[in-house]
Amino acid sequence: MNQAAVSNPAYTELERRFAALDALKGALAMLGWDREVMMPAGGAASRTETLAALGQVCHARIADPELADLLDAAEQHGAGLDGWQSANLAHMRRIWRHETALDAPLVEALSRAQSRAIEAWSLARPAADFAAFLPAFQEIVALSREAAAAKGEALGKAPWDALLDTYEDSLTGAEIDNLFDRLALVLPPLRDRAMAAQAARPAPLVPQGPFPAERQKKLGEVLMALAGFDFGRGRLDTSAHPFTGGVFGDVRITTRFDESDFTSSVMAVMHETGHALYEQGRPPRWAGQPVGEAANMTMHESQSLLVEMQAARSPQFLAHAAPLIAQALGGEGAAFSAANLHALATRVAPGCIRVDADELHYPFHIVLRTRLERALIAGDLAPGDLPGAWNEAMAELVGITPPDDRLGCLQDIHWPSGAIGYFPTYTLGALAAAQLFAAATAQDGAILSGLERGDFAPLLAWLADNVHRHGARHSTQELLTAATGAPLSTTAFEAHLARRYLD
Amino acid sequence: MNQAAVSNPAYTELERRFAALDALKGALAMLGWDREVMMPAGGAASRTETLAALGQVCHARIADPELADLLDAAEQHGAGLDGWQSANLAHMRRIWRHETALDAPLVEALSRAQSRAIEAWSLARPAADFAAFLPAFQEIVALSREAAAAKGEALGKAPWDALLDTYEDSLTGAEIDNLFDRLALVLPPLRDRAMAAQAARPAPLVPQGPFPAERQKKLGEVLMALAGFDFGRGRLDTSAHPFTGGVFGDVRITTRFDESDFTSSVMAVMHETGHALYEQGRPPRWAGQPVGEAANMTMHESQSLLVEMQAARSPQFLAHAAPLIAQALGGEGAAFSAANLHALATRVAPGCIRVDADELHYPFHIVLRTRLERALIAGDLAPGDLPGAWNEAMAELVGITPPDDRLGCLQDIHWPSGAIGYFPTYTLGALAAAQLFAAATAQDGAILSGLERGDFAPLLAWLADNVHRHGARHSTQELLTAATGAPLSTTAFEAHLARRYLD
Repeated sequence: MNQAAVSNPAYTELERRFAALDALKGALAMLGWDREVMMPAGGAASRTETLAALGQVCHARIADPELADLLDAAEQHGAGLDGWQSANLAHMRRIWRHETALDAPLVEALSRAQSRAIEAWSLARPAADFAAFLPAFQEIVALSREAAAAKGEALGKAPWDALLDTYEDSLTGAEIDNLFDRLALVLPPLRDRAMAAQAARPAPLVPQGPFPAERQKKLGEVLMALAGFDFGRGRLDTSAHPFTGGVFGDVRITTRFDESDFTSSVMAVMHETGHALYEQGRPPRWAGQPVGEAANMTMHESQSLLVEMQAARSPQFLAHAAPLIAQALGGEGAAFSAANLHALATRVAPGCIRVDADELHYPFHIVLRTRLERALIAGDLAPGDLPGAWNEAMAELVGITPPDDRLGCLQDIHWPSGAIGYFPTYTLGALAAAQLFAAATAQDGAILSGLERGDFAPLLAWLADNVHRHGARHSTQELLTAATGAPLSTTAFEAHLARRYLD
Repeated sequence: MNQAAVSNPAYTELERRFAALDALKGALAMLGWDREVMMPAGGAASRTETLAALGQVCHARIADPELADLLDAAEQHGAGLDGWQSANLAHMRRIWRHETALDAPLVEALSRAQSRAIEAWSLARPAADFAAFLPAFQEIVALSREAAAAKGEALGKAPWDALLDTYEDSLTGAEIDNLFDRLALVLPPLRDRAMAAQAARPAPLVPQGPFPAERQKKLGEVLMALAGFDFGRGRLDTSAHPFTGGVFGDVRITTRFDESDFTSSVMAVMHETGHALYEQGRPPRWAGQPVGEAANMTMHESQSLLVEMQAARSPQFLAHAAPLIAQALGGEGAAFSAANLHALATRVAPGCIRVDADELHYPFHIVLRTRLERALIAGDLAPGDLPGAWNEAMAELVGITPPDDRLGCLQDIHWPSGAIGYFPTYTLGALAAAQLFAAATAQDGAILSGLERGDFAPLLAWLADNVHRHGARHSTQELLTAATGAPLSTTAFEAHLARRYLD
């Protein structure tokens, strides 16, 4: 750093500015958490004002012409920077490109269109009334196509790829198509065989509740602690939809509790814990800098799915967890046996709703959405034709036609809120999770035997070493290649599914 | 407003800027609440950065030279403004004067001295080691004297009065001396008679716990609802020290629970509820503007003490609350009778610690602190002579000499944190509370009979009409004169104490 301060004062000044920006973004993060977890309804109006004012301050800091000059100057003297600093500077440039690619009228129009679309969607969804949503959706799609073109130009990428870049910057749309086409090919027969095998076994017993939320929360905290969550640097709370929020040093995860079914909250907690371990494991030396963030959403989802799908739903871990779960919830008998809890955790059933999908069906929902949003941005699919295209793809991929648009194309908030390019990272993360877990368990035999004893330490050490400590220094492809010897592919995911559902 | 927009565009622009500033200050308010209520220890470092970054943004907005020009322009065309707008503009000017009175090196030096003094104090207090605190305290006093001189010049006030101005702007140090000299004269004999009367009665029964925090919290919420707290626009939570925080539309009060003694949390909740009702009752039309804030700390404390001391500790209210308290805590018998709870709520006992003082002794602690801090700022008391002066004043006013400085001059965080001029508002608020409650109950007979039924509505309506709805449009003296027919005096407070403790 002292070396850089001497040879590249512009870079040093950029670090100072991005640290201040990070401090302000920390306010946005905590206030966003508070809105979902703590805020009474009466706080909504002022919270909206506060978040908007903070967003404007952050935008102005990035769009400040001085920052552009500093980026130019720092890049001109980039040879003196070390690897972390170079990666940090590249992220600063990428953030600047995203933040300045759209002109002010387009940003304003998108922001207003998103508010209108979320409002229209929240009314149209319960009524299954796509026609009522369509005008707002058309506006979102039209403005998103404009934004995609502008960002594509700024980033030197294809339009949809430029939207994807916010969430995943080392894969192209064409590469994702290849991965997803492969899944669309191999998963249907695998799913059919898994369901046939499941039908041949006795149905798992369903534990009979109620299971009070208070007890489920205590259980969640026990399991989080096992997984290595540091409660000195984070919390567990309750919200309508589970998420991971907060800042470095104060990572806040949430879940919801169904008092008739504890399995959903247990697995939601483990999922968010995977996100949280990544956040808690970021490199402290780079806290406050872009390169100290998590790499991207693919890697983030890989960490949540690795902890949930690969580790927590494994027979090894459930053998240890079953008596803890029974004790925490006051349950007993065969329904709380490790074998039964494992059977419950690996049930497979087709359905219309993405967030309720099992890991075998989930990729279908993502492949569908990715194909459709790529077509919407390319102009190959008119917004008004979405319901038909959606239902057709559901019939083809999942084998179900949604009875209405509430259970079909109106189910997700992502598109109304303007998040296009986000969906694929769910399944890219699932692929990465399988690939990382396979490599981890192959490299260190202590990982699976650790899980049998409820000891996540060997797994967490491997993840810290191969993923967490690198922050955003490397891309998805660089991290996977270094950790597993190969770039992202479907191989390990296919093998994982076959082993879990067909053996 | 349209009129002002036409005739005084500078004023209109100031409203826009102060609304944005208020939105940013809302972030500071919520993050301050979160730090005391939710934040794990690991969040401290980044929270400090975030609060500092937000503070700098707010300061820069006020110190922006454009703002000074706008203030000048708006004042030049001030004749076209209505009463609310004129008051709003005057507050903007006052805020600007406070924010710009000190040059940057002094602000920086004060901020660093405060951090050091809080650190030194938090170590020195448990050790009762004033000598260890003295260097930091000398620095605070020296810098505060500089700040007082600079603010005095900017505001056209005496130095200590200029520090007071942040918390109370319609009273001078000389006026406060007069009020407090009167209290120092009349309260000692009143206290002696009250204690003699108390000694002649049987001691109240002490309810035997434990009283689980969960139950006390539910009870607190029941009592808050009775008092008119709107849970759609606020919350009750737990923190180390009770306080009222949050923003308009989302007012958050806190308390702490002693499981062996519920009376302290019940009364702390009612105290904070008084603050909260003021915040919830601010004029919505002026939300986000300085004139829409609470008037000052005297008036704020008057509202908390009115609800706690005047209303909640009254025999009328306790007659209604006693069975609710017994039911909520599962208590029964004579200890939970209204008469016993009233005796507990009005016990009098001298002590060293301000925050534990009863309402008869509390003013002694404030008179002492006000006299000493006025002497410190005037240069008539050297920081190193504080312990002796403190103990002398305690002996004179309360009749006790603290056994050590932990129970003496090291007990409060106010001075280490640089808050000089704040202490008098506690007792000014107590005087105002008595004066307002006497006027309210004299003007509306339904108020006391309402309290007997647990119905705060008539009282709250009177407070809304005479205090809350005015925001910061009027000063303490203006509000009291309009509501009670006289400026602030000790008369009603003396009468209240005589009635409660001598009758």
